[in-house]
Amino acid sequence: MKIVIVGATGTIGKEVSRSFDNEHEVIRVGSKSGDIQADIQSPESIERLFDQIQEFDALICTAGNGHFGPLSNMTDREFRKGINSKLLGQVNLLLIGQHYVNPNGSFTLTSGIVWEEPILNAANLSAVNGAINSFAIAAAIELKNNARINVVCPSICENSPEMFDLFPGYEKVTTDRIVNGYRKSVLGPFTGKIIRIY
Amino acid sequence: MKIVIVGATGTIGKEVSRSFDNEHEVIRVGSKSGDIQADIQSPESIERLFDQIQEFDALICTAGNGHFGPLSNMTDREFRKGINSKLLGQVNLLLIGQHYVNPNGSFTLTSGIVWEEPILNAANLSAVNGAINSFAIAAAIELKNNARINVVCPSICENSPEMFDLFPGYEKVTTDRIVNGYRKSVLGPFTGKIIRIY
Repeated sequence: MKIVIVGATGTIGKEVSRSFDNEHEVIRVGSKSGDIQADIQSPESIERLFDQIQEFDALICTAGNGHFGPLSNMTDREFRKGINSKLLGQVNLLLIGQHYVNPNGSFTLTSGIVWEEPILNAANLSAVNGAINSFAIAAAIELKNNARINVVCPSICENSPEMFDLFPGYEKVTTDRIVNGYRKSVLGPFTGKIIRIY
Repeated sequence: MKIVIVGATGTIGKEVSRSFDNEHEVIRVGSKSGDIQADIQSPESIERLFDQIQEFDALICTAGNGHFGPLSNMTDREFRKGINSKLLGQVNLLLIGQHYVNPNGSFTLTSGIVWEEPILNAANLSAVNGAINSFAIAAAIELKNNARINVVCPSICENSPEMFDLFPGYEKVTTDRIVNGYRKSVLGPFTGKIIRIY
């Protein structure tokens, strides 16, 4: 399979890429490194990305971020950070990528546990993650040619100790378990599924 | 109580307004009619709205729309319709309104059933509704002075026959049941709740 991994040079993206590397053709996409560079906040950049890649069998996105900070002084401008990056970045990878994906291909996006188990200062990311999950459920019933879409929705990873204090009492999950979520989506038969890693 | 109803001249907003009118001071906000006009897509317009209203006890939003159309040719521009209107409109009513709400006051936003039970052509609204639900869950743990936030999440209303064909097999719900969702949120003690009307 030809597998496009957007965010392939990030903590999780690196491991996901490695797990597919032996048996598949992996195209690593990063904002500044990787095989191809793309800015997922720009629909034009995503168009150019697929122009270069052309057809593919699976797309995984582990890229995108949001605003982290207290609700009490959050602004429209700050809230749009997650909207433009993690939400619209991933939505546009699907909206544009659907015209390039091979029959029976798949899209695997990334959300996160705070969509239903909020932490302080993450209202923007809660909203963005909730949107991604619901978008995937809806997109799954409309994709053509048996293309599929799922979302990997992880809790805090054991490899991110700098974030442990923000998630008090949350069970840390292993990188392997998160990587397996992406493998399950790409290699399995199902669609419209929120793959909770927690 | 001083209750601000944004979208008060819409189908549901009108009934919600009427249900509170006898016992409370209701301020009707519409895009073109009502006691005060505001464009929820503009943070500046929302600022001006609260400048006029000043302190209040409850805010209900039944306004906001999104893009309806097939996923197969959906564009970034179309997808942003729901983001800028139903999602950011309601988010900004909370972000700005939190500085004007009285202690123990409340916010009640509106999402919809397609966040978890998708229909064709509504991927944009699914995403937007999912975002609103998760935003409310997260905002509930950060609001100051015992202010509360809930979301009324209705199915198709019996008063919208023009939409029945889009929701095949979905149970229609009565206007009264939906209105009661808003009353439960405003008059009840809870916060961070998705009040499913289905």
